[in-house]
Parts: sequence; structure tokens; C-alpha cells
Amino acid sequence: MKALIYQGPGKKSLEERPTPTIQRATDAIVKIIKTTICGTDLHILKGDVPTCQPGRILGHEGVGIVDKVGEGVTTLKVGDHVLISCITSDGKCEYCKQGMYSHCLDGGWILGHKIDGTQAEYVRIPHADNSLYKLPQGIDYNAIVMLSDILPTGFECGVLNGQIQPGNTVAIVGAGPIGLAALLTAQFYSPSQIIMIDPDHHRLEVAKRLGATAIVNNKNENAVNAVMELTNKRGVDTAIEAVGIPETFVLCEDIVTAGGTIANIGVHGTKADLHLERLWSHNITITTRLVDTVTTSMLLKIVMANKINPTLLISHQFTFDKIIQAYDTFSNAADTKALKVIIDT
Amino acid sequence: MKALIYQGPGKKSLEERPTPTIQRATDAIVKIIKTTICGTDLHILKGDVPTCQPGRILGHEGVGIVDKVGEGVTTLKVGDHVLISCITSDGKCEYCKQGMYSHCLDGGWILGHKIDGTQAEYVRIPHADNSLYKLPQGIDYNAIVMLSDILPTGFECGVLNGQIQPGNTVAIVGAGPIGLAALLTAQFYSPSQIIMIDPDHHRLEVAKRLGATAIVNNKNENAVNAVMELTNKRGVDTAIEAVGIPETFVLCEDIVTAGGTIANIGVHGTKADLHLERLWSHNITITTRLVDTVTTSMLLKIVMANKINPTLLISHQFTFDKIIQAYDTFSNAADTKALKVIIDT
Amino acid sequence: MKALIYQGPGKKSLEERPTPTIQRATDAIVKIIKTTICGTDLHILKGDVPTCQPGRILGHEGVGIVDKVGEGVTTLKVGDHVLISCITSDGKCEYCKQGMYSHCLDGGWILGHKIDGTQAEYVRIPHADNSLYKLPQGIDYNAIVMLSDILPTGFECGVLNGQIQPGNTVAIVGAGPIGLAALLTAQFYSPSQIIMIDPDHHRLEVAKRLGATAIVNNKNENAVNAVMELTNKRGVDTAIEAVGIPETFVLCEDIVTAGGTIANIGVHGTKADLHLERLWSHNITITTRLVDTVTTSMLLKIVMANKINPTLLISHQFTFDKIIQAYDTFSNAADTKALKVIIDT
Amino acid sequence: MKALIYQGPGKKSLEERPTPTIQRATDAIVKIIKTTICGTDLHILKGDVPTCQPGRILGHEGVGIVDKVGEGVTTLKVGDHVLISCITSDGKCEYCKQGMYSHCLDGGWILGHKIDGTQAEYVRIPHADNSLYKLPQGIDYNAIVMLSDILPTGFECGVLNGQIQPGNTVAIVGAGPIGLAALLTAQFYSPSQIIMIDPDHHRLEVAKRLGATAIVNNKNENAVNAVMELTNKRGVDTAIEAVGIPETFVLCEDIVTAGGTIANIGVHGTKADLHLERLWSHNITITTRLVDTVTTSMLLKIVMANKINPTLLISHQFTFDKIIQAYDTFSNAADTKALKVIIDT
Repeated sequence: MKALIYQGPGKKSLEERPTPTIQRATDAIVKIIKTTICGTDLHILKGDVPTCQPGRILGHEGVGIVDKVGEGVTTLKVGDHVLISCITSDGKCEYCKQGMYSHCLDGGWILGHKIDGTQAEYVRIPHADNSLYKLPQGIDYNAIVMLSDILPTGFECGVLNGQIQPGNTVAIVGAGPIGLAALLTAQFYSPSQIIMIDPDHHRLEVAKRLGATAIVNNKNENAVNAVMELTNKRGVDTAIEAVGIPETFVLCEDIVTAGGTIANIGVHGTKADLHLERLWSHNITITTRLVDTVTTSMLLKIVMANKINPTLLISHQFTFDKIIQAYDTFSNAADTKALKVIIDT
Repeated sequence: MKALIYQGPGKKSLEERPTPTIQRATDAIVKIIKTTICGTDLHILKGDVPTCQPGRILGHEGVGIVDKVGEGVTTLKVGDHVLISCITSDGKCEYCKQGMYSHCLDGGWILGHKIDGTQAEYVRIPHADNSLYKLPQGIDYNAIVMLSDILPTGFECGVLNGQIQPGNTVAIVGAGPIGLAALLTAQFYSPSQIIMIDPDHHRLEVAKRLGATAIVNNKNENAVNAVMELTNKRGVDTAIEAVGIPETFVLCEDIVTAGGTIANIGVHGTKADLHLERLWSHNITITTRLVDTVTTSMLLKIVMANKINPTLLISHQFTFDKIIQAYDTFSNAADTKALKVIIDT
Repeated sequence: MKALIYQGPGKKSLEERPTPTIQRATDAIVKIIKTTICGTDLHILKGDVPTCQPGRILGHEGVGIVDKVGEGVTTLKVGDHVLISCITSDGKCEYCKQGMYSHCLDGGWILGHKIDGTQAEYVRIPHADNSLYKLPQGIDYNAIVMLSDILPTGFECGVLNGQIQPGNTVAIVGAGPIGLAALLTAQFYSPSQIIMIDPDHHRLEVAKRLGATAIVNNKNENAVNAVMELTNKRGVDTAIEAVGIPETFVLCEDIVTAGGTIANIGVHGTKADLHLERLWSHNITITTRLVDTVTTSMLLKIVMANKINPTLLISHQFTFDKIIQAYDTFSNAADTKALKVIIDT
Repeated sequence: MKALIYQGPGKKSLEERPTPTIQRATDAIVKIIKTTICGTDLHILKGDVPTCQPGRILGHEGVGIVDKVGEGVTTLKVGDHVLISCITSDGKCEYCKQGMYSHCLDGGWILGHKIDGTQAEYVRIPHADNSLYKLPQGIDYNAIVMLSDILPTGFECGVLNGQIQPGNTVAIVGAGPIGLAALLTAQFYSPSQIIMIDPDHHRLEVAKRLGATAIVNNKNENAVNAVMELTNKRGVDTAIEAVGIPETFVLCEDIVTAGGTIANIGVHGTKADLHLERLWSHNITITTRLVDTVTTSMLLKIVMANKINPTLLISHQFTFDKIIQAYDTFSNAADTKALKVIIDT
């Protein structure tokens, strides 16, 4: 089969590889219908993720058809259409029992990282009963691919951890795909304001179309001042960090109101300053989270009830043989205006 | 009346002052029976609290007898014995309605700070109905004075924010009075381990007597290693910061387990490093809080049911005319082994 | 002034009464702009509420202008436009401190019940700082009158107690004004299904316009079967009882799924059968609640953010001199198709 | 092997049966060390549980040694000492993912009910990884057997659902083993009062020894009056029903305070009256629950930390060949003063 291979920092290639086979009774082999590219894939390609070794098939998102099942798989059968979760869960370790699948002792984020991933014609999924979600007929798979990673990430790490409530005020720092996913899912809870902050004019325009009540371009204006003006000098109840650098985290510290929450989604490569000399008495909560994908079933129901349209996050669509071009498009987002790119196999 | 006056950085004096009078209909005047000294009083005396002006009567803790009430006071009458909360609450602003009395728009921490305090023979208490707690007869007032500040602070900022649950593991960094208050109140929730960390041998011995399951002297040993050994390399579910310096906050970051909580109590004078490059995927929660004293009624019930003995936090007792000596004792805790000191007027 | 007086079971009249005056420092006198009629007013008129004595001015909902304030009122001044809450809260008793204003020791539901109410040109509001909500300029007062009682009742007793979550399934039994208020506010949480059940065809049509995803006429069809069919035999996560008779409560028992919640809003006059022989192992939660109006500020923000349009609940509008006719219209809803009726003074 | 067989209503026998074998890859065979008898076993013997067919080996509690494992079992190996949960969980269905193992689509309460149980020398445990708990060395297995059912039942259905908080008041109706288990575990949360209500003098004496702050014999006195007197006419924050008949459920309705919770544990055979004509405005919560055993790991930690002594629930001990006598003793509790009886195989 064809597969997209990480060849070490800065290098990738589309190559022929053997089709994966069942290794454990709880495995399934899934034939990929659609996959996509994540910011994390770009991190790996930069060499920022040393736990991912050269030779690895990339990708942790996708929709497909069950092609083979191990004899321990009980809830899925060959031919089922399934959503692949970016997080593998064994359903029986201490962490999975608490709903913290991200830290599963025999899973977590392993696809396209520690084991071969979904940017290929076939993928092996361990603990298939707990890591795949059977799809009903007649739904738009472009929408569903957004449920592998980006929507649960925005929702769990940003919206749920951020404790968004009806009538509350929210700021989302970063209008990339993950910030936009937080924007879409924040609206499940009817906040009265969602302020989107980003230096990219185009992304802010998209944000406005997707439901932001105000946009702030922090290349052109002081974001703290702008947020304070929009909130009657009060600051926001929830500040969501969706970038991953110290400056944007500190911005969240500056705009969160007393009693509010900073929900971090960003993947950080370095420490940030925590201004406890001011915040110690500010009654705030800060959360971090690697997505657990515990809300995947809930999100499926919401998508099927048409309460949200995840295809709004998609800017480009490629066939699998053009995946190198898809990577180029996705990694040059400033020029290409790329958000999520769909790859059809 | 006699009162202890802040005279500017490094200076205090016991002086004669006029007895306070009712200024607003919701005020009460309370004749002090007992008061105590808080670490915050020492901060003021060092000049670290610029919002407290010279000439101020210090003190925000105490038990007393209602001496006069304004005509808007409806739940208290002259002669009632009352606990004075360190936090003044008007009961009607946006914050008080949410239970965040610390940020009351017409109150908060004002006693012995922005208005005259309790280290005197009489004190004026604004919003008396919401800021005083009527005491039943026959209880030990030494125990009750601990409910003005230190027990709700340890409980709300450390234990409740720390989400301590039965069977969980807890570390408390700092075995001063506030850390010990967290230690006492943590036991309301039956954690399986409470590890106390401090460089002072005497305070650790006290901690052991008060219920710590293990003690770690971080002057002599590496606290991170010690905690990891005590918890099978897992770290703790809850790390409570009860010191207020960057090093102890970072220690909490190092010992909290995935999915755990860091609850800050310490009053910080400078920023701390937040190691998001490691913690971003660790699913942790960090909280800060100025005590709201929303649990004062609950704590009164618990003390009256003998579920806790707050007098264990008391090391010395003085009469009011010896308050200068009480300050000397309290501020030289390393030598005097002082914890909380009671002052009887 | 003119006022609508309860004259004993079955009798009411529009009479001249003295304008109310300040009785306590915390009172305000409000000149009524708009009021409305509640189902509870009809209960009183039937003689079902013995705590309401003949001679009482009815009404517990309204918007008005502050005309006089007692000297203890600090957050409002003459001329302020205000929303009147149906629940009076003193802000300082044990219950108010817990957010359970419905059980306020010096308040609760007293307006138009134990003290004179809002169906008059002026009304005296005790504990005005805690029981009135200052309104910003430029909002539609017809919408705001719905926040006195009906919207917080539907929201707190039905939606919040019902623990509605994104993607969940909801059934609301009763499509009268209160059921419709639950329907409107349930949508703050993006459930995937809201099934409305009522025997009145017209009200079901209104429900559909207001966001119900399905309607069931339980005069014509078996409601249990219908709900099971709509939910793949699973039943609903939340069943809201908005009628107040045993049959509809038992219907909720029959349609709630394992792990679900029955949230009672209905005012019941008699006991109901609780089928514990089946439900003991069904892991369900049942809640009852007299509205606390703790969410009034939140609802104001949501209305001002245009997340909801409460005027959809209004069917008729009268001037105050026609209030007897307004009562006739409201009490003959089956014929008049009345929902809420606005009365302008 | 020897096994205790349900032979139809009123009949049981100790018989020879074939040793069970692995049927599915996820099964384990456990050699029983200790088992016990549950009130539910008596219900089966009365013929009250039609889903349990004659010929069934009874028993759903026990401690044992893993004797064989299917090839899909990954966390346990032959020779491991294990606690057997009364609830079987597959770890992958909709309900297990939500922590509602009681309703597992391929498990739930099946042991000694729909499949052969633990009152035998060996038992087959389906979904072994999720339904057995590996035990550390050196703990008292008499204590541990109490974790199969009775302690999680008292804790989850009574204490957790009852929302017991520090300082709260609690009444437990029924001082049988299950009520006593609720009594022991309620103390994890430091309530200020626990009132135990039962007609059996001996059981009330045991309750006092186990931590009840007051006892009420409802054969001799009016329990409602007694509770009101003990709580200053307020009633209790939490009323736990641990009997299973209409009278005791209604008693809970009569003693719960406004804003309080009724947590049902009792297995009911008939409906009860729910007095909504009074409770509709009382802001109460009622919960039902079949134990999920989601807290088994937590309880193990607490027992190992010596925060609770479950052996206080044990009154008698038998060898397995005397199991008929054990049943006689347990079912004649009024005479024998039996609580839980241990059976050693």
C-alpha cells in the first residue's frame, strides 16, 4: 500500500509499504476513506517530537471501513464504517477507567507517533472496540473526520475545561484550526461573547463567519486593551490559549477576570511566566489537557443533529496521491489560507 | 481604647485611640474578646502591602461581643457573641451573589488593611449581618478565633480548590500555620496520604502530630525524590502550595501527577515559572484564591461536632497589653516555635 | 392607585388603593411599567393557596421605575429602570447564602401572596438591592417581563436541575407557558432532541416554532410509545414535568432512560406514585424546586446578547384598565390560544 | 467441585458440579478463598428474582486466586490474588464508558444471577480485566470481601448519591449490613451528625459503635419527631433509604430538609407514595442506583490506608461445608444477631 513516511527532521516521502496485519486479538485493520493533516504532524516533521522515529507512517485522524478484526473484537465487524480516534484507549487501565484516555497505559496518542498512522491506505488500530466509533449511514465524512482530533480537542481542552456557561464571556487566542474548533464547540453553551484574537486577517474573517462576536487583530492593536474595552473593563470569564507560546499564555493571564478560567490547548515548547504576584488573589483556574476523546460519542450525536457544521473548518481537498502537495498547502497557511485539508484515499 | 497601630514599614505601637462608632446602618461595633496575629500582618509591617497606610489599626481576626448595632442590622443584637470574618461581604454585589466574597465590591479584605482592624479593644464591622457569625454558648473561643481566617483559608484555597477526595494522595508544601490548617481540614475528606514538606524540623513534628502520614524535610533531602518514593513514582493527586515563593510553586509542578491539581494558598511577591513544555499534556488544574469565607458556617458546625480541634494550631497566649511581645514571638517562629498566638483583651 | 385585588375564591376586582410607602430601610417603591399574569395567580383565585388572604393585591412579575428608596438601599436610585424578581431575597440568611432564595427566611415568594404584588400602579419591594435588577437602556421590556418568573423557572427547575447537556435527549411534558420557557432555555445547552408532549394541538405548533425537534399529542397517541420510537427505545436523558398532576409525573417515570433525570416544575396538589419497584435500579435522579431566581443576571446577559427571544412566549397585550379581560383571556387558554399576556400600566 | 445451588423458591442445596472453564478470551477462572451471603441471595431464594433460574450457583461476592486466564486477559496472571466485583463490566459499551457498569450491555449484575456465582470452589469471571481487582499482599481478606458489594453499594448509592459533605446532617433508615456500610463510608466526608433509624435494638447498638452520633428506634418512638428534635426542627441534609419498603421511603420524605437529598439504596418490590403536593417546592433531590462498583479502587486505597475497618460488619464465620448453616444464621438475623457472615473455602 501507499503511505506517507516521516524520514527524519524536514523529510517525508510517499512510499510503498506492506499492508498492516492483526497483531493482537483486540486489533482491527481499517481501510482509510479519508484522512487529514494535523499541526502535530508538522511538529514531528520539524523534529520537535523525538518520541516519533524516522520510518513512521504519519497521521492520527481518519474515517474508514473495517477490513479485518481480531477475535477479541466484539462490537465491530468487517464492513463497518468507522471514525478513528486520535487517542487509543484500552478501556481497562487506571486512566481509562477515569476517562483520561490520553494517559492510557497501553494507548494514548500512539497513532502516527509510536505506531504507524492513518496517512496510508490501511492502518492497524489497537484496542479497536474502544478506539473506533461505528458510523451510521448517510453522513458527510468530511464533517466526521473533524471528530478524530480537532473537534474533541477544542471541545475538551478548551470549552469543557474552560467551564463555558450560558451568558459568559470567552476569548480564544489563536484562530487556527484548533482555535476555530473551540469557537464552534463553545457555542454549544450559548456564551454571550466570543472574542477571537489572532494576527491573521483572513483567519479572523473566518472566525467571524463561524460565530465570533468580536475579532481582535493583535498584530495591529493591543489585545489586552481591546478585550477590556469589549468587556467593560472586566476581562473574560474564559480565556482559551490555542497557540502554544509564552506570549499568548501571558495574554490569557492578562485578560481573564477574577474567578475566571484559562484553558490551555496549545502545545508548548518552553515554559511561560505565571504572574502569581498578581494572580494569587484573583481566584482563577488554569487547566492543561491532552485530548481524551471521551466526548466523541457526544460530538457524533451533535453533528448528526445538525447543531454544528464541522465542514466549515475545511479549506482544501486532495486525493491521496497528492498528499505531499496537501502538506505544502497546509504548512503554508499564511499564503494558502489553509485551515483543515481533506485527503481522500 | 488601646489599639495596635501600624506606623509605617518596620514600626508599630500600642496606642490610645477613640472607640469606633456606627457609620452606616449596617455596621456593628464589636468589643474584642480574643484576637490573633496573621502572617499578613507581618507583610504589612515589612511594607509589602502599600494599600495599607500608616496609622491603621491592624488585625482581621477575632471573637467578641456585639456592643452596638446600626438600625439596618437585623440578625444580631447587642450582647451576641460573634466570630469576626477576615472578609467583609455586603451580600448583594455581583461577587457576593456568586459566593466570591473576597472580591466584594464594598468589602473583601478591608479589616486591618483599608479600615481599622481587630487588634484593639473595639472594632467597627461593616455589613455586620453578612460578616459576623453568631456563636452558640459553651464553645472554646481559642478554637473559634482560628475560624476568622486561617481555617477557611486552608480549607477553601487548599482543600476545596485542591479537590481532595477519599483515598487520594496529598502533599502540602509549607508547614507554617496555614499549611497546618490545610492539613487539619484535608482530613475531612479522608485522603490516604498527606505528605508534609518543610525545612523546619519542629513544624514537621507538629505536622505529624496533626495527622500527616509522612514528612519530608526539604532542607536535608530532595523533596521531589522523596514524594516520588512515597507514591510509587506516581506523584500526588493534590499539591498544596502554602509558602508563596517560586521555588515551592515549581516543586508543586514537579510532584503533581497527571490529572492532578495544584492549589495555591501562598501570597506571592513575584512570578513563577510554569513549565508548560511538560505540563501542557499532563491534564492538570492550577487554582489561586483569596479566601472567600463562604465555608465559615460549615466549619463552625464541624468544630462544634468535635470533628477537628483547631486549638492544636495555637502555641502561645498573651494578654492584650503584651501584644508587642506577641508580635516578637510570632515573627521569630524559628526560635520561638510559634504557630498561632492568642491575644486576650 | 388602581390595583387588582383577590377577593376570596373565585372573586377578583380592580379597585382604588393607597400608594405603598417605604416600611423598612431596605425597601423600594417601584412604579409598574408592565406586568403579566401567572398560572399561580389562577391557583390563588381558585382558592388553592390558603396562605394568600382575600384583600391581597395579586402579581409577582413586572418591570418598572424606582420611585422611592429606603435609606438602606445602596445599589439603586430613583429613576432606575428595574426588573422585579418574583422571589424576594434578603441576601443574608442561611438559605440566601447558599443561593436558595426561594426559601429566604425573610422573603421567598411573598409578592402578590403574603404582601401586596405587582398588578397595580405601584408596588413595595422589600430587600430591594437583592430583589430588583437594574436594566440597561434600549431593551424590549416585553421580553424582560418574562425574566421575573417564567424564564428562570423553566431554566432553573427544568433545564439546570435536568442537567441538560450537549447532544442529550429531552422530553418536556406540558407545552404551556412554563413548558415553553423550559423549551427556549433548554436550547442554551444544544441537546440533540427536544420532544414536546401536550394534548393541545395549538401549543404543540407553537413548540415546534420555538425549537422542539418533535411533538407528541398525548390526547391522540400513547406518549410512552411515541417517545420510545423517537429515541430508538432508549428513552430520554431528561424528562421535564411541566403540568403538575400525577399522570404526567408517572409519564416522566416511564420515559426517562437509565441514568437520566426527571426535573419537576409542576405545582402539584396531590401525591404521585413513584414506581421504585422498577426505578430502584435505574440510576435516576428526580428533582423538585421552587424557582430561586439565582440565574436572573445570567438570563439578562443572554437576552441582551440576543441568544433567545422571550417575546415568543407572549400572545396578547392589554392596558391595565383591561386587566379583568386579560385574566379572562389567560384563563381560557384553550379557546383564546393565550400564552403569556402583557399588561401595560 | 462443591457449589451452593438455587433449586427454586425456598430450596437450595450443596452439590458437586464441574469446575468452570474459560469460555471467552477475556474470561478468568478464580479459585475462591472467601465468599459471603448477600440479602439479594435471600431474595432469590424467596423467588422474588425471576431472572434467576433454578440450577444456578449463587453468590456474587468473594476473594480468590486466579487459576486460569483466557488469552485476551492482559492485566492478570495465574496466581494473582483478586477481589471479585459483584458487577461485571466489559469496559467498552456506552454505559461502561460513562462509569455506569451496573447497566453494562454485556455484564452488570450477572454473577450468581444469570451465570454461576461465587458460592463454590471456583467461579468463571467474564471480562476479567475489568471485573477483578488485583490485591496487594498482607491485607485482611475478611475486610476485602466487604468490597465486592456491600461497601461500594453503601458508598455509591448512599453516600455519593446522597452528596454528604463535611458538617452536614445525615439519617440512615435501616441498620442492616447495607445501612451500616453506608454509615462507615459516610464518615469519609465528616458529617456532623449521623442518625441511625431501625426497629432492632441490637443493630442500633452496633451502629453506635460504628460511628452513629444518635440512634432512633422506630418501633418505640415516632422517627420523624425524633429526627426533628435532633436537628432543631430542620430535618437532615441527606436521608438514606436502606430498607426497601414504602414506609421507610416516605419516612425519608418526611425528614429531609429543604434543599436536601434522599438517596435510595433499598431494593423495592412495590411503588411508594411521592408527596409532591408538599415536596414540589422543597428543592430536593431523590436518587436511585444499582451499584456501579466504580469506586472499588478508591475503597481499596482507603482500606489499605486504615481509614475504615470493614471487618466491623462481620458477625459470623463458617467453613464452606457449613454454608447451609451460614444461610440459616444470616436469614435469622433477628435471633442470631447476624450481620455479614464470612465463608472460607
